[in-house]
Formats: sequence, structure tokens, C-alpha cells
Amino acid sequence: MSRARLPDGLEGLPWELSHAFLGLDREGQDFERARAVLLPVPYEATTSYGGGTRMGPRAILEASRYIELYDQELDREPSEVGIHTLPALELTREGPDRAMAQLRELYGQVARACGDRFLLMLGGEHAVSSPAIRAQAERHDERLTVLQMDAHADLRPEYEGTPHSHASAMARVLDHADVVGVGIRAVSSEEMEVVRGSDAVTLVWADEMWEDDRWMDRAMEALGPKVYLTFDVDYFDPSLVPATGTPEPGGGDWYRTLRFLRRVFREREVVAADVVELAPVPGLHAPDFLVAKLVYKLLGYRFESRSGE
Amino acid sequence: MSRARLPDGLEGLPWELSHAFLGLDREGQDFERARAVLLPVPYEATTSYGGGTRMGPRAILEASRYIELYDQELDREPSEVGIHTLPALELTREGPDRAMAQLRELYGQVARACGDRFLLMLGGEHAVSSPAIRAQAERHDERLTVLQMDAHADLRPEYEGTPHSHASAMARVLDHADVVGVGIRAVSSEEMEVVRGSDAVTLVWADEMWEDDRWMDRAMEALGPKVYLTFDVDYFDPSLVPATGTPEPGGGDWYRTLRFLRRVFREREVVAADVVELAPVPGLHAPDFLVAKLVYKLLGYRFESRSGE
Amino acid sequence: MSRARLPDGLEGLPWELSHAFLGLDREGQDFERARAVLLPVPYEATTSYGGGTRMGPRAILEASRYIELYDQELDREPSEVGIHTLPALELTREGPDRAMAQLRELYGQVARACGDRFLLMLGGEHAVSSPAIRAQAERHDERLTVLQMDAHADLRPEYEGTPHSHASAMARVLDHADVVGVGIRAVSSEEMEVVRGSDAVTLVWADEMWEDDRWMDRAMEALGPKVYLTFDVDYFDPSLVPATGTPEPGGGDWYRTLRFLRRVFREREVVAADVVELAPVPGLHAPDFLVAKLVYKLLGYRFESRSGE
Amino acid sequence: MSRARLPDGLEGLPWELSHAFLGLDREGQDFERARAVLLPVPYEATTSYGGGTRMGPRAILEASRYIELYDQELDREPSEVGIHTLPALELTREGPDRAMAQLRELYGQVARACGDRFLLMLGGEHAVSSPAIRAQAERHDERLTVLQMDAHADLRPEYEGTPHSHASAMARVLDHADVVGVGIRAVSSEEMEVVRGSDAVTLVWADEMWEDDRWMDRAMEALGPKVYLTFDVDYFDPSLVPATGTPEPGGGDWYRTLRFLRRVFREREVVAADVVELAPVPGLHAPDFLVAKLVYKLLGYRFESRSGE
Amino acid sequence: MSRARLPDGLEGLPWELSHAFLGLDREGQDFERARAVLLPVPYEATTSYGGGTRMGPRAILEASRYIELYDQELDREPSEVGIHTLPALELTREGPDRAMAQLRELYGQVARACGDRFLLMLGGEHAVSSPAIRAQAERHDERLTVLQMDAHADLRPEYEGTPHSHASAMARVLDHADVVGVGIRAVSSEEMEVVRGSDAVTLVWADEMWEDDRWMDRAMEALGPKVYLTFDVDYFDPSLVPATGTPEPGGGDWYRTLRFLRRVFREREVVAADVVELAPVPGLHAPDFLVAKLVYKLLGYRFESRSGE
Amino acid sequence: MSRARLPDGLEGLPWELSHAFLGLDREGQDFERARAVLLPVPYEATTSYGGGTRMGPRAILEASRYIELYDQELDREPSEVGIHTLPALELTREGPDRAMAQLRELYGQVARACGDRFLLMLGGEHAVSSPAIRAQAERHDERLTVLQMDAHADLRPEYEGTPHSHASAMARVLDHADVVGVGIRAVSSEEMEVVRGSDAVTLVWADEMWEDDRWMDRAMEALGPKVYLTFDVDYFDPSLVPATGTPEPGGGDWYRTLRFLRRVFREREVVAADVVELAPVPGLHAPDFLVAKLVYKLLGYRFESRSGE
Repeated sequence: MSRARLPDGLEGLPWELSHAFLGLDREGQDFERARAVLLPVPYEATTSYGGGTRMGPRAILEASRYIELYDQELDREPSEVGIHTLPALELTREGPDRAMAQLRELYGQVARACGDRFLLMLGGEHAVSSPAIRAQAERHDERLTVLQMDAHADLRPEYEGTPHSHASAMARVLDHADVVGVGIRAVSSEEMEVVRGSDAVTLVWADEMWEDDRWMDRAMEALGPKVYLTFDVDYFDPSLVPATGTPEPGGGDWYRTLRFLRRVFREREVVAADVVELAPVPGLHAPDFLVAKLVYKLLGYRFESRSGE
Repeated sequence: MSRARLPDGLEGLPWELSHAFLGLDREGQDFERARAVLLPVPYEATTSYGGGTRMGPRAILEASRYIELYDQELDREPSEVGIHTLPALELTREGPDRAMAQLRELYGQVARACGDRFLLMLGGEHAVSSPAIRAQAERHDERLTVLQMDAHADLRPEYEGTPHSHASAMARVLDHADVVGVGIRAVSSEEMEVVRGSDAVTLVWADEMWEDDRWMDRAMEALGPKVYLTFDVDYFDPSLVPATGTPEPGGGDWYRTLRFLRRVFREREVVAADVVELAPVPGLHAPDFLVAKLVYKLLGYRFESRSGE
Repeated sequence: MSRARLPDGLEGLPWELSHAFLGLDREGQDFERARAVLLPVPYEATTSYGGGTRMGPRAILEASRYIELYDQELDREPSEVGIHTLPALELTREGPDRAMAQLRELYGQVARACGDRFLLMLGGEHAVSSPAIRAQAERHDERLTVLQMDAHADLRPEYEGTPHSHASAMARVLDHADVVGVGIRAVSSEEMEVVRGSDAVTLVWADEMWEDDRWMDRAMEALGPKVYLTFDVDYFDPSLVPATGTPEPGGGDWYRTLRFLRRVFREREVVAADVVELAPVPGLHAPDFLVAKLVYKLLGYRFESRSGE
Repeated sequence: MSRARLPDGLEGLPWELSHAFLGLDREGQDFERARAVLLPVPYEATTSYGGGTRMGPRAILEASRYIELYDQELDREPSEVGIHTLPALELTREGPDRAMAQLRELYGQVARACGDRFLLMLGGEHAVSSPAIRAQAERHDERLTVLQMDAHADLRPEYEGTPHSHASAMARVLDHADVVGVGIRAVSSEEMEVVRGSDAVTLVWADEMWEDDRWMDRAMEALGPKVYLTFDVDYFDPSLVPATGTPEPGGGDWYRTLRFLRRVFREREVVAADVVELAPVPGLHAPDFLVAKLVYKLLGYRFESRSGE
Repeated sequence: MSRARLPDGLEGLPWELSHAFLGLDREGQDFERARAVLLPVPYEATTSYGGGTRMGPRAILEASRYIELYDQELDREPSEVGIHTLPALELTREGPDRAMAQLRELYGQVARACGDRFLLMLGGEHAVSSPAIRAQAERHDERLTVLQMDAHADLRPEYEGTPHSHASAMARVLDHADVVGVGIRAVSSEEMEVVRGSDAVTLVWADEMWEDDRWMDRAMEALGPKVYLTFDVDYFDPSLVPATGTPEPGGGDWYRTLRFLRRVFREREVVAADVVELAPVPGLHAPDFLVAKLVYKLLGYRFESRSGE
Repeated sequence: MSRARLPDGLEGLPWELSHAFLGLDREGQDFERARAVLLPVPYEATTSYGGGTRMGPRAILEASRYIELYDQELDREPSEVGIHTLPALELTREGPDRAMAQLRELYGQVARACGDRFLLMLGGEHAVSSPAIRAQAERHDERLTVLQMDAHADLRPEYEGTPHSHASAMARVLDHADVVGVGIRAVSSEEMEVVRGSDAVTLVWADEMWEDDRWMDRAMEALGPKVYLTFDVDYFDPSLVPATGTPEPGGGDWYRTLRFLRRVFREREVVAADVVELAPVPGLHAPDFLVAKLVYKLLGYRFESRSGE
């Protein structure tokens, strides 16, 4: 729901920045000229250990207000492309099946309204990715590759009685897209069988990533020309992001991850993205800030080489 | 800064309620028809023990979304009068003198824009009340009485080097208005001299309030026809609101306080109000919710008997 | 899942008390001789503000270990009747409809296995009460009265897309039982219509309870001979139990509540009970302890006058 | 260990108040003229549920800096009698037996050095009271009465393998003094036998205290002319002081407790006192502040009527 | 104390996993077939800075439920060897001397009952290692080497009045075993003298470990054929495990540590182990999870190459 | 304000270590023989995201008590040079202009009183550095270089209405000294213009530092012979120090930073230093400890090669 207009005569006051990403002003977030759109989906229903992903999008937006607009790596202000922040979508509580069906429908509507703007969804739990990916798959003729930055393979056929759990997020996707998982370090035997039996799945284990950078080439090779990026923040090492459901040790660091992502955006067409599973710890802002900056980095990379679009 | 409009075609989606008080929809918060206006001023510069009042307005608005619109005591939905929530005012960090001078100016502008709407300010620290009261005093011919619900007299001539501290909030007011303090339970010797030497100050001690309800009559008598209500949430007992700078034991309870406030609104004209000094404790929502409900109660009482205005 | 037996030769060591309620030893918790059975159901799917009711049962059991077995009010150790703590039930995550259907079935099985033992369920969110009440209603010929200690009426026909939300817990019950709500202080207009249009609902408002004790008589009158007690811990004032989803100010205190409950157990047959909606705040043990002691008080009152059963 | 002197030429700078109680200045805390002495003993070895009493004294001293020196009830600044704060005593970790023997010795030394100054010890766990009481008993010819404000009787002969646990604090005392327990609401069957079999113990149950004030007379009657006051902060209701090991619901409130204590100090000679079992909750200052103010109230009452001593 | 059996007819319900490590089912944790046994000893008496190690074992067991059973590094489910979790041992509170004597006795009993099963103790503070090591030393003819992963040397002859402090854990061991400390980065001058004067102590400084991997060879050389592994979790960098008493910066990382440990288990016979000093931070699960996974890794390595034992 | 002396006869008791850095005893902290002096300035007025730097100095001093005096890298006890801890300076709350003018004056007084002792200031927010640097610049004929370890350039001409914000700390310095910023990773476009237009500023970007160590040479070259070191703890990676206002990912690690600092102290004359912007997170001690150890390392390096001074 959009906020009401300011009363006449009060426009010039020093109002606090709005709840848009980065606290952008009216012009900076104007939908018409914006090249990027953020869609918060604070859905949480099946998370297992510590909960709280429902608070993730809000924490990201709040933290983003303290990010410098200027990006020294890119030597520009990526925000200049215009970033529109939608209000948060509230999904039905009637259960995962219906909520995910609803999200697929709503995400499709949003994607259509966005046209060729870059749509980045903020979760919520990882289950929200599957409907988004399916909606995006329908919008593209070529088969998409899903680049999944994640600690967990999320390839369980079902989990806790539902096929729409965060633990099955990628299993739902395999019929529609290939999956390249990066940073994986926790899988079940059952998932290993899926991996071994499927040509559609490529995994880069987290411990490989600590040896040298060859995994980057391997991952790039497995990526088709069109990529949907889904970023579960438990990909990161828990020292960086303890604020997530199941914080597996041995995860990704900051600079190596950015280097890889920049390459992906340069060498592939990333058609859409999501960042999910931030579960804020009250009183601890650092993980929220890191994830907000990750989102800004993704947008920066997206429009770095394609600014003419 | 007002949020951007929704893109075409996305109006019908189940968007989360906006950050307006109570999460009111566009019509419910429309400025033109609104009879009440909330002005957040998250100013914090001089708080002493635990800080954090800067986060107060945001916590109140967030908590307000979970309040039932229907008020059983009043048997109506007070929100029907329309409540417009302004964005937050950001004051200069150049020091209390300039910030308070700026607030007096800005508050005046806001009050003029509001016309006869009821303006309720959300702090921030108690220092913000003085400029608001002075601005209101200028708008009324009759001398105002300030009804101060508070644990502290806040009558120090100055504190920590500035006359604009939260500890001097009421000393700044005495030239322009009488003060009736209720729930007071922490004063300095210096303040006692001010009290004893001034006809303009009436104090109801917190320990009186535990005996019987005669203090209500005494307080009512001291109130002139036009009242500015300033409510420092440390008025409440710390068991109810531990989330404040200096949580003095022995404070006010919920029902007795409401009964008194309802009487004030019925028997006097409350011209404006503020609620200040909530300093949210991360992870503890109860105090935020209580203060949000207090704000709603104040609005309910304000428009109970005067709905014809 | 029951724990494995101790290896031979290690029985005599000073092992920590088990995770049974009160840390009762093997004999004290033996199912065969136990007159009371606790069933934890840590179900959480639709809670709105602050989450965390899934951690409620565990926190209650942990806190219960520090309760004195001797009850000075009753001058006995109520634990002597034997209290068996079942493991926690894990419901499907397929959505509220299926989870509630499953619970109704499972609760029925548990109730049958318990025979005439007193079954007390530990939630989880309030939605779990409705299936339990329906299962109990089927086991008794007479119409049950549900005594609902609660801040909210929970009478919404549906909420957030599901008829099985915590906010509809009592609406689900009305076909099968009368409802007497005590401590209510937050209802919607819609719920008020249900209340006004139904003979099956009696409400005791929280503000009545602060005047005198006449509400007790009114509540007792409305209770039929057979009572199911459902205790939402947000009944209590938030100063006592801030650790709950929507902590409404103005709630019940400790001694008055106990006096009323003791009278209910003495003058009516309480056939089963539940205690729900504790959402523990990390680092704050007091609310967990209070709720654990409430559970023990309920058991003490239940077997006070009926020890011959 | 006392701090070093300020370097020459730096005396006049606006230094922060020292870590003495109330942040008193050099003169205000000067030992020679001080009539009251605070002795912190942050001993914690046997606490059961939540730990942390070791941090109690520090939290009390920190909070005390925000207390107003002027006491409106007494219409004076009680701090004028002079209050000296000793550094904290560190007891051996060799186990409760040796630590308590050591404390008895050290407390005796401190008491002798204090002469007729009023010595108030800050715990730490309740076990520290027994050595202090025994040391005080030796200094007086008349048998002392211990006035124990507490939720627990602490009369277990032993607990967890040691006779020097917080749970046995008062059992250790009975040979040397009578005990009047006020606010008690958790005892074991074993302790009930001690109570019933002993003329030296008088208990005022917490639930009596909610009826009317007759318990005050009963307690006063049981107090001999010379009283040692030991105040376990779990005496208070957990809504006021959740920050303690075992926060039993149904505890004492602020004003009634003060009224009783003032009467005790007026009508008996309180020879020494302690305040124990505060276990600060990180981020929650209100309980620390309440306990600091209690300490100041005790000192105020002590020197109210006996200022000529 | 083992839990009671399930009542008849309720075996098939979807009960929550038990509190055994990994939530293993009855068969998976059956003592008879288990090759590994976990012994929680939540002893805390002498910890200095932040306390809380008493909560360590419980946090490890709770977190372990969210670990994937499949280990991708080992390409198997190490849990298949069977892991039995004993209840927690409660030691006397009579002081360190008696508690440690008691633990030595009890640990011996447990070790005998375990036979050739691999016994891994979960602390509690580091003081518990010494009695376990001595008991293990008595069970083996060859002199053991203690591999101590730790930030501190723990070689003080005594500390805070007791020779049984966590700070003296290894000093107690030197008569019975050699010590190889890895990750050490905080020692006293006094400890340096012990190190320099003793052939039995080898230290690998943490800063060496950041240069290259030669320290691994040096450590391996110093290890005799039979090794007792004691793992103080403050060995890890505080970015990974802030949840410990004295979190020294500059500690070990995840993969390098695992690589070293795997080598130790492959090239030496590790006869028993412990993991100690986790002091959970309320609301922060990541460190608990890391330590739980470390425990599982140790078991995985232990039975990797020796599965025929 | 210095503490009062101990009463006669109580010197020999086991008093807790004082609040001096490292808990040094009277001799260890004696001003006359001390070569180093710590000046706490807990000033906080303009911090933006999470506040709390006002609590920084206290947390550093508290944590410092658990540091080993012996430094294994330097093979000595650096504390032997004597370290005097001054009480904390309380600046006026009249606004940044006056507070900073006051600090410049007071810092000058302190510096003069210290003579050739090494003065290290503990913040508080970064704004305190500028007055200290100007005061030091006046004391030296040669132009100083400010070595700024920081995530942010802090070169904004003004911020939030004041030129004395933490975000302008270094802009205030440029007239008086050159600046070498290390670890910078967040700047504005405006600041980039300052950097590009000024010969006085050299920046080492944080991402350079992850490639190799050439940045150290570049930084050393830019440092003149006399250096003032200002260390904003947000220089560190947020995994190490999340407890700061704006925790930018991608920051410095422990050992590399120490290696660089040791080189600076060996090859330049560091005339004074400060450590600022620690904003403690309640319940999380690890960052406080790291910063305390950093302070000790700085002192150790300062007196390593110059012990003959």
C-alpha cells in the first residue's frame, strides 16, 4: 500500500528518508524511470531451527539506508539507474501449497508489470524462490540455469510433510531449469542420489572453494546463457551471517563471492534474482547490513556492463 | 518523503499494510479527511542512562499494526476519524540549541498545515516537548496548562551543559504555560525549590496515587481549560515499560491512568499532545505495544465526546 | 521418541533430572500410575507479531525443573499423583487445514490412550486448542463449556486466509461447545457481532476484573458442569508475561487468577486443559517460569478435591 | 584496590563520576565521615537456574549513578550522611566451605574497620549472608533477628552436596539468630518440617501480603530489638525484578515493601544489611535500577530517625 | 535419568526427535550397538569473564538435531556406527577439589561401562578434562599424549585459590601425560616458565598457523601413538565462536582445523576426547551449531579408517 | 574522580582488581612511573545507525581485565612500562561545536600533564579524534601524518548539519596534517572528489588488502616521520567487530593488521593514538575483548623498540 501524499506546504521539511531501498528520494525510486525493482516477500512457514526470516526484508531495507550510494569498486553510484521498492507481499496462511501457488501467480503479475526492469525478490524463506523461478522460466524461451548460492542443496523431494518447504526449494525447480549450486556443504544421502542421478544439477562444494579459484570456471561452464540467481544468505560463513536458520560453518567469504558474482553478471544474462533466509538477530545489525550491501552489489553488477539497456 | 505510487496493474495485490499508524489503508490515513495527525520526531541527543529513544517512533508505528481497531471501552473504532501519519522529522545535529530552535519552527509549520486537526508528536527524547508547547502556546490566546505524565519533574534549569536537555524539558515551558505533573517520583533538591517557589507548577507524587483517587480531583483542579498533554512513558511503572532511559520504580498502572486521561479529555480541551522517551529493548515487544495502544487510546478519548467538531 | 535405557552399571550415578515436567524421576513420571499427562504440541504457523511459540513447550519443561514440588497453598506435593510427560508431537507443515485435521486425529488417539488421566496440552499457538476441544467434545455426552483465559476473543471467522489461525481458535469451537472468555481486552467489530449474536459466548472483560470480584460469579454461572480449560498466556498482564505474540496491556494478575481457577476446579469438572502461546524471549526466564508454575497449579487444583478419582 | 590519584593539574576537568554508589564525589564518599559503607561481594558458585549474580554488585553501582540524590518521601538527601563504597571482595574458588569460612573472617575484619558505620553488603548469591550474619552475631550480645525478604525459605539443611548453597543460607543462621521470612512463596516439604519444628522461624507467606497489611504487625512482633536485614531480590514480583535466578510469581510490590521497611528501621535497630541475588539481564536496565534505588531507600530509612547516632 | 517408555498405542505418532545427539532414533542411539558414547558434564564453577558453560552441553545437543547425517567429505553417514547420548552428570557443588575427585571416579565408571566404545565428553568448563585424562591414562599402559586445541595454555599451577580451575586444566595433567597445545595465543609468564622447563609440553602458537601448514608436521611429531583429544572451543577464532568465556582474537578456522584433526585420527589412535567451554549466547545459535558439527566431525574421523575395530 | 583511599587495616584483603586498564595494581598504574596514559572520552552525539559508542570505553576497560599481561609475540609483559588510566572525560551536551572546542582544550591540558608519556584516547565516536589531532599538531613542529585505520573515509565536509560529525572526522584534520587511510571501503562521491583533489590524502582500499601485502609499502611511504594513529574499530571485518555503528563487510583481519601496525611503530614515531567507535552489543563480549587486546598490542608495539625513552 503506498503511503499518502504529504500535506500541502510540508514538502520542504527535513523528512527522514523513506523506507525505500537506500532511502532513495522520490525521483531515485520512481517506477517509470527505475531499471530495478525490489519485491519483498516476508513469507515464513516451514523454517526449522531458529525462525525469523519473516523479518528479513524489513531488516534489509532498514540497513540499506546506511549504505554509501557511491561504489568504489565500480566507480559510480549504481543507484542512478533508479530502484523502485515495492511494498511487501503478504501470502495466504492457508498452507505452503496454496501460498506457493498464489506467489507464482502474483510474482507473474509483478514481473509483467515490471517489463524489462530487473526484478529482485527479498525473502522470507527459501521456498519463495521456486514459484519465482517457474514464473521466470515461463517468460523465457531458453531453459534457464538457476545459480544457487547456498549452504544446503535444498533438493529434498519433500520435507516435514510438504513439497513446498525451504528444504525442497530446488527440487521444485529441476523440471524447469538446471541448477548450479555453489557453496554447498550440507546435503542428505537422499539429495546425493538426486545429484548423482541428474544431469541438471552441478554442485560446487564449499571446501573446494577454499583451495583455489578453479571452482569459478567449473561453475561458469555449467551456467547457460540465461541465469536466475537465488542467494540463500546461509551461503556465507556464519561468522559473517549468523542470522539465518541453519548457520553451517565453512561458508563463503565476501570478496571471493563478489568476484565470482561480478563475473557471472558480466558473462551471462541474469534475468532475475532473489536474496532469502536472513533471520535477523535482535540487537545485532552487522548481518543485516552485509545482506543489504550484497543486494546493492548485485544491482551494481547487473547494470555495470549493460547500462545501455 | 512519501513513497512512490504503485505501478499500474499492481493495486489489487495483497500488499502488506503501510507504515502508517495502525497500518491504515489509503483512505483511512488520507490527510484531507483525517482529524488526527501523528508527527514522529526521533530526536535523541542528551539521554543519560540507556539510550535508544531515537528508535521509539518506529517501534510505536510497527507495534500499532497489531492493535485491534475496535475499542471495547468506547464501543467504536476510533480510527474512523482518520489518522494521518507524517514521515519522521530529522533535526540538525548541530547541538540542542539549534535543533530545538529548528523544531519550534518546523512544528509550527506542521501545526499550521494541520489546521484544526489534532496533532500528536511521537518522540524521541523529552526535550522535543518544549518547542512544541511553545509553538502551541503561540497559537492560543489563553494560557495553556501542560499536563505532564512523567516520573521526573524535568524542571532543572539546565543539565549537562545545556538548557535543552530532556531533564530541563519543563523548565523551558514555565514562562509560557502552567505545568501539572502527574506520577512524579524523582526530583532534585534544585527542582524542589523551583516547585516550591512557583505557582505555575502542581505536582502529583506517584506514591499519592497508590492511596486512593483523590489526586485526580487535585490534578483536574489545577488544569486550565486548554491543555497540552505531554506523556513521558517513564510515567508508567517499569514492570510495564522497562524500555526507557531511567525506569523509576513505583510508577503508574494501566487502568487508573486511562480513567484519568479519559476524564481529562472529557472535561478539558486538549489542544495537542506528545508521547516521548520510549527506548525499545531489542527482542522485547511488550512495551512498544503498550505505548502504541496508549497513543490509540489518547486519540479515542480525544474524539469520543467531540466527534462533532 | 523415548530415550534409550541407561547402560548396565550406570544407574546409580548422579544424572541430571530428565526433561519430564518437574524433572520427576522414573517413578514419579511412570505412565501407569500417573494421573496426569502432559502433551507438548509445539505448532506455530500463523502467529502474527513476534513469533516463537514453537519454543514454548520446551521452555515450560525446562523452567519446571526449578519449581518446588511442595505447594504451600495446598499443603501437599501435587506431583505425587504422578505426571507423565509425552514427547512433543510434530504436525505436518502442509498448512493449517491438514495440520489441524491431523492434530484432531492424534489428540484423539492420545486421549484414548490416557483413559481417565487428566490430559493437559502445551502449545504452540492457540490454533491447537480447537482440534483438542472437538476431540474432547466427542468423548463426552454433555455439551462442554470452554473456559478461555485470553486477551483476545479469537472469534474471527477466518484470518489471513485460513479458518485455522490462532485468531479463529474459538470460532472453530462454537458449534461444539459454549465459550466463556475471561480477561478479554482486544476484539474486532466483527467479533463483537459474533458475541452479540450468540448465546453460546460469554465474555468477562479485563477492565471489569479490576473493579471487584463479581466477574467470578458471572463466569461461574456461565460454566456448565463439564469444562475444557484453554489458557492463552497473553491473558496475563504483559508485565508478567511479555513473552507472547501480542502482549495486550491491562491483563490478569497472579493471585486473583489462581483464586478463580481453584474455584473452577472445585465447582466444575474440568475434563482437559491446554496452556498456549508462550513465545520465550531469549535470556529472559521469568515468563517461562511463571507459565510452568501455572501448569503445576492447574494440576494441583485438579487433584485437590478429586484425589479419590 | 583504590584508583591512583589524578595527575597534578587535572583535578578541575569534567571527569565522569566515579564508580562509587551514586557517583558521589570524593567528599561524599570519604570513609572518615561516612556513616554508611557498601561492601560488594560478587560471589557466585551454586546458583541453579539462570546464573549471573556475580554481575549483580557492578550493575547496582552502575545504575545508582542515575538516582536522584534527593528523596521526596524523606524530604532530604540521604546521601549527606556519607556513603563509602569499598572495592569488591574476591573469594577463593576452592569451594563453598572455604569461601564461606574466608568470607566470615574477611567480613569480620571489614565490620571492625567500619566501627559504628552501617555496613551493607551487595551480593552475589544468597550464600554470602550466612557468614555475614554470624560475624554480626558475634559483635552483639543480644540475639539478633534476621529479617529475610525472600521468595524462598532457604532453609534446606544442604543442597547439591554442600551446606553452603544459596538454598541453605538461612539454615546456617538458625543457631545464631531467629529468622523472620517475609514474602516466602516457595518451600520444600523438608523446609516445612524445619519451620514447624522450630520456634526460631516465622514466615509471612506472599499470598497473605495481598490480602491486607496485618502481616506487617505479625512480622514486627516476631522481630527482636536488633535486626539483621537480608534482602534477596527475588522477594519482589518478577514483573519488577525478572533478573534473578528463580523468579517466583506472586512477589512483593514497591510501595508496600517500602512502607514495611521504613517501619522496621524506625521501630528496630537494624545493625547491618545485605541485598543479594540480582542477576542482570543484558540489555534490560530496569531491574538493576530498582535494586539500586532499594539500596538507597534502605540507607535513607536507616539514617532517618537515628541521624544523631 | 532415562525417559519413561511411551504408553501403549502411541508408538506410531510423529513424535519429535529425542534429545539424543542428532536426534537419533531408538535404534540409532542403542547403547549395545553404539560405537560412540557422549557424556555431558555441565560443570561450571571457576569460569572468569562471561559465564555460561553450564549451558554448553544442552546447546550442543539441541543444535545437533539440525545437522545433516550425511557427511559429504567422508561420503557416508557417520552416525551409522551408533551414537549413544548419556544423560548429563551433575557433580557436587562442594568445591572444585571434591567435584574433580568425584568426576574422576564417575568418569572411570562410565569408561568401564563403555568398554571399547569411543567416549566423548561434553563440558562444561575445561577443568573437567583433567579427571577424564587421568582416568584414561590409568586404562592404558602407554603414556598418552594430550592434544589440546585451545587459545590458552591452561598450565597455571593454580588460579584463584584452586588447583582445579579451568586455567590449570593442563597443569594437572602433566604428571600423567605429555601435552601438545595447538592454537595457543594467551599465556602468562609463569606458564612460559613451565613450558620452557618441561619436555612434556609442545606448543603450536596460533600466529604460526597463519603462515603455512608446517605446524601440522611439528604437532604430529610431538604426538605419541595414543592420543587424548581435548578441544576447548576458544581455540576457534571469536568470529566463529564468540560464545565462550575469554574469546581471544586470532584463532583457528574451520577447514584447516578439520584437515589437521582428520590427519590426527588417521595417524594416531585417539582413545577418547572432550569438547568444552561453549557458553551459549542467548539468541545466537551459530556457535552452538558449529560446535555440534565439530563433535560430529570428530566422530566421523574416528570411525573413518577404523571402522573394522 | 579518583576513588577514595581504602580504610586503614583493609589493604591486605583480596579486593577485586580496579577499573584501570588490565586491572593493574597501584604500582602498575602509578602516574609518575607510567610511560603510557589512557584517556576515555565516551562522547556520542551524532552516530547514525546503531548507537552505543558511549559505552565503548567502559567495555574496553572491563574486558581488559581478562587479558594476559604476558605477550608471546613480544616475549615480555608490555604492562611493565606502567599504564595509567584516567577517569572518563564528560563533554558538554551543548552540541558538537562546543563539545569539540572543549575537547580540544581539555585534551591539550591532559597532553601537557602527560609530558612525554604516550597518550592513547578511547572513544566514543570518531568525532573526538579531530580535536585530539589538532592539539597534538600544535605540540609538534613537523607536520603530522594521521594514520587512519577505518572503513569510512570520514572526509565529508559536513554531515547532518554539523561539521563535527563522526562522518567528517578527517575532513577537520586536513588543514593540520596529512591523512593515510587504511581499510577504507565506503566513501561518497563527494569524498572521492576530496581525495582526488588533495595531495594530503592517501587511501588504501580494503579490497587491495586481500590481494597481497604491497599496500603496506604504499602506506608506509605515505607516512611522514611523525604519526598520529586513529583506529576506528569498524576497520575490522564485522565478523570480528560487529559491535560498531556501520559494520561494513570486507574489513581487516587480526594478524595482518598487527603486522602492519608493528611495522608502523618500528619505522615511525607514533606520537599519540586513539581507538574509537566500539558500540558494545549487550551479551556479546568478544568484540570488546578484541578491541581491548588491540589497545594492549598498540602499547606493546609502542614500547618495544623505544624502551630506552
